[in-house]
Amino acid sequence: MLPVEFWFDLASPYSMIAALRIDDQAKRYGLEVKWVPFLLGPIFTEQLGIKDSPFNLNPARRRYMFRDLERLCAKYGFEWSPPREFPRYSVYANRLAIVALTEMDPRTGHALVRQLFRCSFGDNSDIGDPHIIGHIASVFGTEEEMAVRVRRIEDQDIKDKLRANTAEASRRGIFGAPTFFVGEEMFFGQDRLDDALEWARTAPYFDLPPGNA
Amino acid sequence: MLPVEFWFDLASPYSMIAALRIDDQAKRYGLEVKWVPFLLGPIFTEQLGIKDSPFNLNPARRRYMFRDLERLCAKYGFEWSPPREFPRYSVYANRLAIVALTEMDPRTGHALVRQLFRCSFGDNSDIGDPHIIGHIASVFGTEEEMAVRVRRIEDQDIKDKLRANTAEASRRGIFGAPTFFVGEEMFFGQDRLDDALEWARTAPYFDLPPGNA
Repeated sequence: MLPVEFWFDLASPYSMIAALRIDDQAKRYGLEVKWVPFLLGPIFTEQLGIKDSPFNLNPARRRYMFRDLERLCAKYGFEWSPPREFPRYSVYANRLAIVALTEMDPRTGHALVRQLFRCSFGDNSDIGDPHIIGHIASVFGTEEEMAVRVRRIEDQDIKDKLRANTAEASRRGIFGAPTFFVGEEMFFGQDRLDDALEWARTAPYFDLPPGNA
Repeated sequence: MLPVEFWFDLASPYSMIAALRIDDQAKRYGLEVKWVPFLLGPIFTEQLGIKDSPFNLNPARRRYMFRDLERLCAKYGFEWSPPREFPRYSVYANRLAIVALTEMDPRTGHALVRQLFRCSFGDNSDIGDPHIIGHIASVFGTEEEMAVRVRRIEDQDIKDKLRANTAEASRRGIFGAPTFFVGEEMFFGQDRLDDALEWARTAPYFDLPPGNA
């Protein structure tokens, strides 16, 4: 079975819903999940010519989004606290996610990324601040080990990896987050998580040949 | 139990997915559904300053949408034919929906609206053309009766009702279609149909107090 790729940005609250569900859901099907952090900002600038979240362009849509997230979190039993800043600066957090996902054991790395999401959207912690990120990370290993990992967010190779992920996201047609890929089949939005897993499990499903989204 | 309001535009393919599912799903819970046609065009112009579908502003998002709809239709067993024009002119079709929903028996009226959706997105029929609409409608009653109903799309009271629905949509914070209301609780997108029905059945659910979306 193909692995499911989970593309996310730590600035994206809908990505949190997927992040807190995907490993448990994938496990039920015996599916492997590959987590890929990227930056939405450059994608929105490139595709829409804006320097903001599209949700902020339309007050009606923005207002609804916060209520929708509150309901979704209540439905799944996740904490929710409407973010004081939206979108929150996520470059450092996404770089730490790259470190966590490529240099730590997968179980702990995923847990650290989930905790970054929870702190941002559940506790209203400013994960744009490297000190706060450091504090969050500190319990996912020894203090010294995690201090080293957190300092990696200033290293060129990590910066380059995040840029490369963002460029690949754009190339593959990503326009928002979360986005899932099964091979080249793309699924957008946390609402499509279960469809993406179903596709990975049985593709082509519903007698529909794989296509190019 | 509160009824579920189903706000749709016949130009909206995601509204079709909801239209073909909602009555059957609601029946399982014993819920009443109120169908409300409105026009997305004036909403997009008012909120975004555009004279087009937001999907057409971003080629990546537009391309994905058509694949997503193809998959959703395959999943639910609905016909799908990528529309030659998007969005298709829907003023006449929405006016006929008002006639169908307010002047015909509910079962037949809903069936006629579903058929308009199916012809547009399943058969690629141009429901922007009053002659094609007339042809579609002709089998939902006697030929004479349906000819009279179809002529109603030029009547001032029907035009006014569609305008009033669109103004109310805007006032209530609608920014896309389909949108569901349970009381003042708003749910956007066909992906939220089941959540809306669940809310209607058990509100407030998940220990979450009703809010203002």
